[in-house]
Amino acid sequence: MSHDFRLNCPVPAAGPATIQIGHGGGGRMMRSLLDRLFFPAFSNERLDTKHDSAVMRIGAQRVAFTTDSYVVSPLFFPGGDIGKLAVYGTVNDLAMAGARPAYLSAGFILEEGLPIKTLEAVVGSMRDAARVAGVELVTGDTKVVDRGKGDGIFVNTAGLGIVPNGVEISPQRIRPGDAVVLSGDLGRHGIAIMSVRASLGFETAIESDCAPLWQPVSTLLGAEIAIHCLRDLTRGGLASALNEIALDASVSITIEETSVPVCEPVVAACEVLGLDPLYVANEGRFVAFIPPQHVERALEILRENALTADARVIGVVDDRGQSVVRARGPLGNLRIVDLLSGEQLPRIC
Amino acid sequence: MSHDFRLNCPVPAAGPATIQIGHGGGGRMMRSLLDRLFFPAFSNERLDTKHDSAVMRIGAQRVAFTTDSYVVSPLFFPGGDIGKLAVYGTVNDLAMAGARPAYLSAGFILEEGLPIKTLEAVVGSMRDAARVAGVELVTGDTKVVDRGKGDGIFVNTAGLGIVPNGVEISPQRIRPGDAVVLSGDLGRHGIAIMSVRASLGFETAIESDCAPLWQPVSTLLGAEIAIHCLRDLTRGGLASALNEIALDASVSITIEETSVPVCEPVVAACEVLGLDPLYVANEGRFVAFIPPQHVERALEILRENALTADARVIGVVDDRGQSVVRARGPLGNLRIVDLLSGEQLPRIC
Repeated sequence: MSHDFRLNCPVPAAGPATIQIGHGGGGRMMRSLLDRLFFPAFSNERLDTKHDSAVMRIGAQRVAFTTDSYVVSPLFFPGGDIGKLAVYGTVNDLAMAGARPAYLSAGFILEEGLPIKTLEAVVGSMRDAARVAGVELVTGDTKVVDRGKGDGIFVNTAGLGIVPNGVEISPQRIRPGDAVVLSGDLGRHGIAIMSVRASLGFETAIESDCAPLWQPVSTLLGAEIAIHCLRDLTRGGLASALNEIALDASVSITIEETSVPVCEPVVAACEVLGLDPLYVANEGRFVAFIPPQHVERALEILRENALTADARVIGVVDDRGQSVVRARGPLGNLRIVDLLSGEQLPRIC
Repeated sequence: MSHDFRLNCPVPAAGPATIQIGHGGGGRMMRSLLDRLFFPAFSNERLDTKHDSAVMRIGAQRVAFTTDSYVVSPLFFPGGDIGKLAVYGTVNDLAMAGARPAYLSAGFILEEGLPIKTLEAVVGSMRDAARVAGVELVTGDTKVVDRGKGDGIFVNTAGLGIVPNGVEISPQRIRPGDAVVLSGDLGRHGIAIMSVRASLGFETAIESDCAPLWQPVSTLLGAEIAIHCLRDLTRGGLASALNEIALDASVSITIEETSVPVCEPVVAACEVLGLDPLYVANEGRFVAFIPPQHVERALEILRENALTADARVIGVVDDRGQSVVRARGPLGNLRIVDLLSGEQLPRIC
């Protein structure tokens, strides 16, 4: 995989000499940093799958393991806060590997001068989110940095999940002809964050879609839907998720733009901000790659769950080898949906 | 445990309203924050043991899980850097639960403008440390924050370890009469960091003792030494570790100050800086609580390993109930060794 990936996504020999905001964006700059620096240093079977979670066998059980740091700014936004995000984001990375989220760790980096009340609110929100998601926070750590060397609160969570017997979910299982099922409308999380960034002087009633995704995944698995791959649509949105999967699975994907649901206020906000909703981050949306004979039943199941009531087929896996993502517009024209270079919405999660 | 702990370590009803540097120090302020905020929010069987790692059963296997964020300043210091620290620190928390370190996650928070070369050096150091410690880094995450909202690099690592059958290591297993075995001399890590903090204009040839501790622990376990409890001597040093254990195990502990090895340059540096070596952080030292009939053999084993060649008995567990740590001085006088309130050496790890 690793070698193919490099052929498909050439990395400039000389990148920038310093870290740029774009390196955190989920786009081409981040992939390049990972490919040049992290993957060669730590190459091993688990890391090389480049999935959201690593899956290891411990005794007779398969265990998924994942981590994310959360640096969202501001800490509180319509529909959530950094604490809720830190629980659901990591829980969702486990769910995307088909793993039942079980245990979380939490590492806090606090800036001197942070009001204790703010920390209390974030911790309370993590407690509530952990209950909703059915995970136990079992270990943690707190560090304090001097004023001006942090930004209020950064949270890292790592998660452990249990992969049920027989479940195999990974980009490598995707086959031409698989349907691309999208679980709901796009862009709410990113726009909710942008709406409260004071400097933009922009307000909407949009709330983040931040939500835990194991329940719908679990229901699909329980109904023996042959899910080939899952991916949540966080940094870089749908477009980046599809590009990563196309690269890692060595397939091309075509989506129908008119099938992709985006609510009116998100469309309006994206127009004002000059954003493409396909690239805006979500925290409660995913795509599932499902073989055609299981699609109808999968949609029935997803539509029974409020979180995924709006699920629909938005595209199809074409053929092997090219790793291109295309979108068909309303007039039937095809355009290439590429990885962005850097970051359209910094510090979104 | 939780209730006893509060009786023993009364928490002021009204703490400060904002986070202070002292909240990160491993002393009384940090314990108070944990007790007021984190433990009540996330109370569960695993977290309530207040051990460095949580231990869970997954299938037939017991798994230890731990996390730490590293915010050490400066990033590079004599004998190590933040990358080495982030691997060995977490590996050691697993070893202190008697667990063989197996898998690590790494979450990076990078500040815009960080030279890529700096990141390369830290990642290279993590790769080398992971090889030495025999762990695989299997999953990771990178976030970038704006210039002035971070401090170069923060790293979080979470670790998974496998607890061998029959191994039970926890404060609750400590018995009166247990010997307190110290694995080596104190204070090198803290003084190495202080020596390079420019503002202190202070230099020594002391290198950090930063090292992975599973190997000596594993040898003790292999020789069927009945280790009751282990604790590495990081933030807050030996004094804080013993106080935490005394509280969590509801025992008193007496150490002989003249038995505690501190090398001459560390003694000298501590005098200049006004520090007590008992409270200075180490990153490659631990205490083991061992029943008297196993002590001699344990010391023989430890002294065969270069990392623990200087191991010796420094004290004894007295009686139940009081949770006081005492040190006998060179003239036979006993003094109480208390938890510090805040932080004597901020951002030491």
